[in-house]
Amino acid sequence: MQRHFDEKIQELLEKLLLMGRLAESMIQAAMRTLIERKESCCSDVHRKEKEVNDLQIEIDDRAVTLTALQQPVASDVRFLFMASRIATELERIGDQAVNICENAHHVLKAPPLKPLVDLPQMGEVAETMVRNALEALVNRDVALANRVLEEEQRVDAFRDQIFRVLLTYMMADPGTIERALALILISRNLERVGDHATNIAEEVIYLVEGREVRHSHEDPRVSSASRNPVA
Amino acid sequence: MQRHFDEKIQELLEKLLLMGRLAESMIQAAMRTLIERKESCCSDVHRKEKEVNDLQIEIDDRAVTLTALQQPVASDVRFLFMASRIATELERIGDQAVNICENAHHVLKAPPLKPLVDLPQMGEVAETMVRNALEALVNRDVALANRVLEEEQRVDAFRDQIFRVLLTYMMADPGTIERALALILISRNLERVGDHATNIAEEVIYLVEGREVRHSHEDPRVSSASRNPVA
Repeated sequence: MQRHFDEKIQELLEKLLLMGRLAESMIQAAMRTLIERKESCCSDVHRKEKEVNDLQIEIDDRAVTLTALQQPVASDVRFLFMASRIATELERIGDQAVNICENAHHVLKAPPLKPLVDLPQMGEVAETMVRNALEALVNRDVALANRVLEEEQRVDAFRDQIFRVLLTYMMADPGTIERALALILISRNLERVGDHATNIAEEVIYLVEGREVRHSHEDPRVSSASRNPVA
Repeated sequence: MQRHFDEKIQELLEKLLLMGRLAESMIQAAMRTLIERKESCCSDVHRKEKEVNDLQIEIDDRAVTLTALQQPVASDVRFLFMASRIATELERIGDQAVNICENAHHVLKAPPLKPLVDLPQMGEVAETMVRNALEALVNRDVALANRVLEEEQRVDAFRDQIFRVLLTYMMADPGTIERALALILISRNLERVGDHATNIAEEVIYLVEGREVRHSHEDPRVSSASRNPVA
């Protein structure tokens, strides 16, 4: 019985991992749309969105069914609740890839405003956060989960730098405002990807250490936001 | 045993309702900061944020404990998973109130750009969506949950209108760009409040009807976003 249950848990983890890889590849494709100015990359994003959505429903169903049929102990129940919430986070990362595609569409309607420097790097940081959060989950690696939390500051720093630079373009030439706004919104989309990865990492820390970091971690975020141009 | 369980479920619902009222009042206070130009309203938001965070942890713990100790049937397990996810949605609504305060802070640093017309209305629509989603949950009212889903289109329409109007201000006078950007970001914060309310309403429909609307509902959203200036 326990062995059967453990196998089912392992299957669930593998589904989460698959979903995580899909979500990460959606962000990659969405950023490629922007960086390589190739709108065709977005068809990949839309195709994978359906897969990710289906996986969320499947993971959730499996978690509920396992809980109801196997009547697991409290620690396993906690894991299964968490699996359901992590599937939600991953699905929302996929949504952000779709949003990046929409915003990129507006960027590509006009010639490049400037060479993209920070956004591609910010995208890579956000993708790595997603990958590391999932790896931390699979290996119950709290040190790696903590590294994901630390990366959030880098994401915030990119967000602020991108904002400031684009503001100067808008101020100097109102003709750049629409493109600059779309780029600012893409940086916000990436920030949200980082937020979702952080949420996953916080779940992992709680699962392994039983230590609630979901909100203790928010205070520095809030105070750093207050130093920023716009939250 | 069943009666005891039903009482515990009722208690959980009441906690969710309390959390929902708190989250809604946080959005109200944050919007008052902006509309009445009173930064003091934000201290109310920050105080309530702690309460909302504590409630999320409490609801989640109760749901896990009830599941582990009472070994409920599948439909109750599904409800308890849902309660945990709804608590997460409500906590994020509170986060948006905090973000609105941060953005309002930047708006209030300068004289009013223009009389606020759409944003206060958009705020009211978003607050009503939160209230109705919770009421739909308590009364298992699918018709009301569907009304919440319909309201999302109004929120999107406000978002686009606010964007277009503020764009004209920015184009005409670069001196307005920073304030206009902060107002645009507040409209995005409100949009996210509406998204969270929609997520709750979708959970309610699934709970009552066993019909998965979480993703079927996304397609029109995506296609409407593609007609919009920026997603």
